[in-house]
Amino acid sequence: MRLRNVKGAANVIEDSLYVIKNYEDYKGKYNMLFSNNNPIHIEIGMGKGDFIINMAKKYPKINFIGIEKFDSVLVRALEKIEEDIPNLRFIRMDATDIESVFDKEVSTIYLNFSDPWPKNRHEHRRLTSEKFLKRYDKLFIGDKNIIMKTDNRKLFEFSLISLTNYNYKIEEISLDLYNDDIKDNVATEYEKKFHEKGFPIYKIVVKK
Amino acid sequence: MRLRNVKGAANVIEDSLYVIKNYEDYKGKYNMLFSNNNPIHIEIGMGKGDFIINMAKKYPKINFIGIEKFDSVLVRALEKIEEDIPNLRFIRMDATDIESVFDKEVSTIYLNFSDPWPKNRHEHRRLTSEKFLKRYDKLFIGDKNIIMKTDNRKLFEFSLISLTNYNYKIEEISLDLYNDDIKDNVATEYEKKFHEKGFPIYKIVVKK
Repeated sequence: MRLRNVKGAANVIEDSLYVIKNYEDYKGKYNMLFSNNNPIHIEIGMGKGDFIINMAKKYPKINFIGIEKFDSVLVRALEKIEEDIPNLRFIRMDATDIESVFDKEVSTIYLNFSDPWPKNRHEHRRLTSEKFLKRYDKLFIGDKNIIMKTDNRKLFEFSLISLTNYNYKIEEISLDLYNDDIKDNVATEYEKKFHEKGFPIYKIVVKK
Repeated sequence: MRLRNVKGAANVIEDSLYVIKNYEDYKGKYNMLFSNNNPIHIEIGMGKGDFIINMAKKYPKINFIGIEKFDSVLVRALEKIEEDIPNLRFIRMDATDIESVFDKEVSTIYLNFSDPWPKNRHEHRRLTSEKFLKRYDKLFIGDKNIIMKTDNRKLFEFSLISLTNYNYKIEEISLDLYNDDIKDNVATEYEKKFHEKGFPIYKIVVKK
């Protein structure tokens, strides 16, 4: 994603009630933040927010938290919220710190069009590397669910090996999502663009 | 594959020294048939034989046995053998009987462009269904290796789930073989045709 420096982004984020600033205070207690015990789903690397905003509208009985590293991207998501969405929050942080934010309270992690980090020496930065899967272990409560979409073949191949070697079981898989029955699909900005260019979109749902 | 009735096929097969007729006698003793203790690799559904004939020529220290159900197809493989290939044999039989032929002596099973059996009720006929994986368990000695190629997306998706749920670990995977480095690839007749039409070829190498 091309990153522009969005003027005033830091202020907009600081002022938004959708952005959790003192997220470390809520570790293990996010049910307090939402004032309910509904399941918590998080998206790591939410980008401009289309996916998680639409998911939150579609599934009001699930609490969604989107994680994004860059102010300039997160602010675009905030601009898209036109009505109250009480089951949605954002955190601006780097995914490597994810363990300091959640503790045994997440049901599902979404990884959408994550950075493929194509160089071998950057393997540990991929969000489906063993290093990250170990971090995720501590976040989950009950079954561990990961739902991933990407257009990057090499990242998908890597993820298939990494996830199954880490004993995740494949529940669903599509090697060409838009040639399947996808009535329930919620698309990201990136996904729409790449599908329109004719690239296959890969999807996997795994559980442990 | 279109099946024509090849006149005299049964006689050609009956007369060929490459075709093992009394295969049940060799169960557990195929090293006697080859007069050596080299590893045994089998291809289930070998079709017209391009793959297994070329593999046998390329790897003389491995014994190859190709399995094919139809006389009319097997005879085409026999016609392709122009020089002696002592590490190659064929068996004409249905794959459902595979347990009656081998016992703890196979190192690797190749499944190339197997019939996808697209209907749900025919799932158990797919060569990567749990029913077949159970049969294969009894064939293997040492590590269990399966190497699969197909152009059929739905069969590949099914196989990924079935193999990993059966605790096979993915060693290698390609979702577009001809866009990878495939210097060691040995193609089947079918594979050449489908690759030329621009379809991706899927490949997986699994071990248990």
